[in-house]
Parts: sequence; structure tokens; C-alpha cells
Amino acid sequence: MTISPKRFLADLHTLRSFGASGVGKGVVRPAYSAVEIASRRWLAGRMQEAGLEVRFDALGNLFGLAGEKSLLIGSHSDSQPEGGWLDGALGVIAGLEIARASKEEGGPPISVVSFQDEEGRFGVLTGSDVWTGRLPMSEADGLLDSGGQTLRSARERMKLGAERSVPHDLFSGYLEMHIEQGPVLDSSGDRIGVVTDIVGIRNVQITFTGRQNHAGTTPMYLRKDAFQALSAFNTRLNERFSEVVTPTTVWTIGHVDVHPNASSVVPGKVVFTLQWRDADKERLSDMERILRQICNEIAGDFGIVVDLEAVMGIDPTAMDARMQQTLETAAEELAPGQWRKMPSGALHDASNVANVVPSGMLFVPSIGGISHAFDEDTDEEDLILGLEVLAQAALSL
Amino acid sequence: MTISPKRFLADLHTLRSFGASGVGKGVVRPAYSAVEIASRRWLAGRMQEAGLEVRFDALGNLFGLAGEKSLLIGSHSDSQPEGGWLDGALGVIAGLEIARASKEEGGPPISVVSFQDEEGRFGVLTGSDVWTGRLPMSEADGLLDSGGQTLRSARERMKLGAERSVPHDLFSGYLEMHIEQGPVLDSSGDRIGVVTDIVGIRNVQITFTGRQNHAGTTPMYLRKDAFQALSAFNTRLNERFSEVVTPTTVWTIGHVDVHPNASSVVPGKVVFTLQWRDADKERLSDMERILRQICNEIAGDFGIVVDLEAVMGIDPTAMDARMQQTLETAAEELAPGQWRKMPSGALHDASNVANVVPSGMLFVPSIGGISHAFDEDTDEEDLILGLEVLAQAALSL
Repeated sequence: MTISPKRFLADLHTLRSFGASGVGKGVVRPAYSAVEIASRRWLAGRMQEAGLEVRFDALGNLFGLAGEKSLLIGSHSDSQPEGGWLDGALGVIAGLEIARASKEEGGPPISVVSFQDEEGRFGVLTGSDVWTGRLPMSEADGLLDSGGQTLRSARERMKLGAERSVPHDLFSGYLEMHIEQGPVLDSSGDRIGVVTDIVGIRNVQITFTGRQNHAGTTPMYLRKDAFQALSAFNTRLNERFSEVVTPTTVWTIGHVDVHPNASSVVPGKVVFTLQWRDADKERLSDMERILRQICNEIAGDFGIVVDLEAVMGIDPTAMDARMQQTLETAAEELAPGQWRKMPSGALHDASNVANVVPSGMLFVPSIGGISHAFDEDTDEEDLILGLEVLAQAALSL
Repeated sequence: MTISPKRFLADLHTLRSFGASGVGKGVVRPAYSAVEIASRRWLAGRMQEAGLEVRFDALGNLFGLAGEKSLLIGSHSDSQPEGGWLDGALGVIAGLEIARASKEEGGPPISVVSFQDEEGRFGVLTGSDVWTGRLPMSEADGLLDSGGQTLRSARERMKLGAERSVPHDLFSGYLEMHIEQGPVLDSSGDRIGVVTDIVGIRNVQITFTGRQNHAGTTPMYLRKDAFQALSAFNTRLNERFSEVVTPTTVWTIGHVDVHPNASSVVPGKVVFTLQWRDADKERLSDMERILRQICNEIAGDFGIVVDLEAVMGIDPTAMDARMQQTLETAAEELAPGQWRKMPSGALHDASNVANVVPSGMLFVPSIGGISHAFDEDTDEEDLILGLEVLAQAALSL
């Protein structure tokens, strides 16, 4: 199968022209925006030219079908409100090029997909959520974006006409190529990452309520300072998590609101989030047990009240063993010694699709680890290498 | 000298009726508001009835003069935007009662003052700042409140007419009674505090700039998390400050802004304030040296950039030794074993007045340590005991 790096890059740049914005190679192409719908129609045209059967489902997921049971390759082509040119677009155009090349040379049947609203204008991975049955269409229709619009009104704007469902059993498996969106490959010098698992996420909002006081007249020993409680919680959490985590486990206190947030007032309350991610569901639960225990300790030590909201989460998803093996073999052949196995710390459509067909994922480096920003980028050599590894794996499957 | 607790409490309640608001005994009487000007005219009337010579200076500070060189007693009668009924009002009405009782019985000459804008609608201790010469009137006139009004336009609303300056050498000394505004007396069970010093304050805004990253894809070892740097800074600060502080030293991180403040993003920046207070200027400087050193250490350990704004501050003010001794003697006579010497952690007009005449201060308990809030209160028995100690001290001086 002779893929064309030139045609692949040309299509990728054309897709970027829909919503090209900001500095560098920035893109503004949120799901269901006018420019996003236009890009999806252009993509459908390219699929048709490649001899694929174009099908939109009711949500707006776009499939280019090979006409018989086939491997599905793709990702998503919507962007963050301020996004980069690669993100999901890379995986969609890679799928298009491989399906096209295979069709031209009578290779194995390969289909392409661009899921809708992966970036979560309305939900999280909304398109693949609905396609895989995780989220009923009726529920999805009621989802609101930050401006208060319903998903139903947004998808009606697509005026799909002949929408049709796309059964899962049309596909023998799913491959997704994506930029890493993190710094691991870029900082290690590896050029390909074969994804072992898409990590699970747990997220909880915690409130510490102490006592708001005058910062001049309240002696240290009579304070119930909510910020001091948070700092002690954080220190203890880092110590105790270190006993159970692996080098790929991550945890973050990313959101902190201090009340009343005035330099002359002892903080009476802090509201903060703790998020943690790991590929092992057991470990996610161990970490939750530890954090709850520390909350109790801090409540006692500082004389404060601790409130935990419900812990929200998404479970980890392992990639299919055969898919991993095939990607590893292709990576070792085309980039010997320059690839690694790694978990994905970000969510991807593959974590949904893995529930309905065997799935695999491949990463290429993100320069500086930057993503979801106008200056997201990857060397074109790495994009092409990723395409070649993906094509090789598709052939072997 | 026979003071009248009943008349004293009646005047205090009448003063509260100007701006009575909110729950409990709340008061809304900010400097130069219509109701505050009305209360100041009522106070002037009470001074006149007591046989004192009423004089407003250009800023609106109100004096009731005894007509010869005299002891000055008072405080301020403006309130916070949401304040309590006592705060500075207590000290003004106490001064009025003592001056009146002394006048009635031919006792020593005693004058009264209510300083304007102690609560800092325009500055900090604005009225006593100007009267003591710390702040030139021309500069004060340009000060703006949070709504963008100038102090000049506010004071013109008082339509003072016959304003006259009040020379410092009319007074032999200054006594100020005030609620403690903190929990020390209330929690120890003492009923009187004799103030040794009004503590000095240092305040600095610090920015830690790390690197904003995806909370899923960025491994812990590659992060430059500004919130983690702040937590480590705080822990180290508490350890190292403990080597130089006394039990009355206080320090507070009261204001914290985390950027971008999202649960899925590693914080790239935190901006926070550190404020510390102590009666010893040397110790304030030692603490500054320590915090600067820790900033350098944290910058190195976390690979972040640290920016310190200019350190702002007010130096500590010792109360006059003879004034302290006289207040202590009166307290021991009227409340044996139920009083203590203590620093004031809050600023008061006395810290300005001490620069022009010998000054002393006396505290009564704040229930629950609450102040600058509608539910600020003190037992009436404690208010009366405070008045009696103050009167006794005034007689002795």
C-alpha cells in the first residue's frame, strides 16, 4: 500500500483552513459551528472522492465506509474554542489517507470516522458517547453548552437530511492516531508512543470551612485558617500518595477559591478541586480512600468542617492486546529504538470505542507538550512517521 | 468624679440609631455618609450641652474642647460598610461621659475627640493621619474611595462653615478605649486589656510563575506547579518563622489567586499576599529576611519565577509608659486579677496620636472576638467597667 505523505499533509492543511485563527497554526472550530459544519461537508466530499460511502449519523458523526466489514480509523475534527491544527484532525486525515491508498491499490477494506464534539462543547466525548451507546440520544439532546443552547438545536443546524445509524458490527477494530498532548515523547526524544491504557479520572470538589477572623487581632493559636488546612492537606496528600502511586500516576489541585480572599482576613473557607488519574481502577480507589482519611485527620487537627462533593469519574480503558502488539511491531520496524509504550493521560474517543470493538492508539510527539492552544505543533517528519506506522499496522491487521 | 453608666449607655444607643442596620446591633455609618454627618452633628450638640467648646477641623474631625490644656479622650464614630455598634463609637461616648462628669463636678479639664474616617473609606486612619500631620491635607483631598469619589468632594458635603485647626499643644495626653476586636480577652476571661504597643504591619504581594499544563498528560516530574510551590513555601515559612516569633506575632496568607484555576489544568501562576504583624520593628525585618530567603529556595527547588512587589508597612507604636502605668493601676483597683497587658494587633487612631502627645489605650472584650460585622458585641457590664477604669485613669493623670 503506497500512502502519499504529500496528499496527507495537503489535506491536513486544507482542513486547518476551516477556522484557521490566532497565531501560528491555531484553529477555532468548535463542534456544530458554521465553519465546523462546513469542514465536515468538505471531509465528506474527500471521502466520496476516495470511493468511500459517506454516512452521517443523527448526532453528526461522519463515517466513510469501505462497504464491507472493515477496520475503522479516525478520531475527531472539532476543536477547542482556542485549539491547534492537529489534535483530532490528524487522526481523521490519517484514516482518510490510509483508506484512500488501500482503496486505490485493492488493499484491505478500511473505513474512516470523524466523531462529533469530542472536545465537549456539550458533554465529554459526546459523539463517541452516543455512537457507542454510553449516552442515549434523548439525553444527549438535552445537554447545554456554556451559552445555554441545547445539543438538539445545534445538531438540527447541520440539516443532515438522510441521517442513518452506523452499526458497530460493520467494524473489525478501531485505530486512532493522536498527538500526545503532553511532554513525555518530546522530552525523551521518542517519536512514537503505543498507548497501553487510557487512564481513568477521578475528580472531587472539597470545601474546608474554618473561621474567618481579623488577621491582626487573632492570635495564631486561636485560628481556624482554612488556607493553612489546605496547605497541610496538600503536604500530607503528597506524602501518602507517594506510597501507592506509579511514575505515570498524576494528581492535581487545579482550582482553589479562598474566602473572603483579603490580605487582612484569616481565610474562613476554601473550596478546591482534587483530580487524580491512573490506568488502574484499584489504585484510583486506593487514592480516594487515602484522601478521605486525610480529610478526616485535617478536620480534627485544624478544627474545621470538611465537605466532599460526590466523586465523579471515568474508569480506565485498556487498549486491545493484539492492537498494541501490531502497533509495537510496526513502530519497531519503522522507528527502531525510538518508540515507547505509554498510558494516555488524556481522554480520547478510543476509550469509548474500545467498549464495542477492539481498539488501539498511537501517539506522535507534541512539541513542548503543548496542546489545546494556538501554538500546538508537531514536526511534519513525525506526522509522516506516525502515518506510516499506522498504515503498516492497518495492513497487518 | 461621678460618671453615669446609664447616661453613657443611653448616648451609646442613641449614636447607634444613626445608621442602625442589619441583624443584632449592626450599624452602617461610613465616613461622610449622610447619616454619619448627622451623627457627628448630634455628637457636637451633646458636647455643647456638656459645656465643651465644639470645633470641627477642615477634615471633619470633631473636638469638644475643655477650654484649657487638657487630657484628650476619644476615638472615631464612623463605621465599616457593615459594622457593629461599638468599635470606635464606644471610645467617643466614653470620652464624652468622662468630660461631662468632670465638667459637672469641677474636675480636671478633659476634652473629647471623634476622628473622621478611621475605617479607611479613603485612606487608613485618614482623620488622625491628617490631624497629626502624617498626611498633608492637599494629598488627602485627592484620595479616592472605591466608588471613585474624592475625599475633597466628600468633606465639602459636611458644609462645616466655621472650620478651625486644633493645635496639638492644647492637649497633655490622649486616652482611647476600644473593643479588642479579637478573641484574647474573651477566651482568657480577662475583662480589661492595657495596650503596650500597637503592632507594626508588613504586607507584600508575591507571584509564583510556573508552567501551565494539562493535568492528565503532564507527568509529576515534569511539572512546575505554582500551587505546589505556594504550599511548600507556606510549610517552610511556618517552620522558619517559629524560630523567631513570639506568641503575639501573627502572619497570614489571606489572598490567593490561582491561574487559570481549572480542575484539569496544572496551575501556571499563583498571586498571593503575605501579611505579618509584630510590636518589634526588628522582628518584622527578620521575618522579611526569612521570607525572601524562602522565596529564593522555592524558586530553585520548583524551577519557578518569583516576583515580590514592594513591601508596604506601618511601624509599631509603643504606648506611653506613664499612661500604661496609670491604666494598669486603675485596672488592678477596679478589676483585680481580671486584666492583662497586651499588644493591639489592629491599628487605631492612638498609633497616630502617640506621635504628637503621650498616648495610652484600653481594651474591653469582644464577644467571640467578632468585629467589623453586624453581630459585634460586648457585655454592658464590661462596657461600664471599661468606662470606670478609663475615668479613674483620667483622674490620676
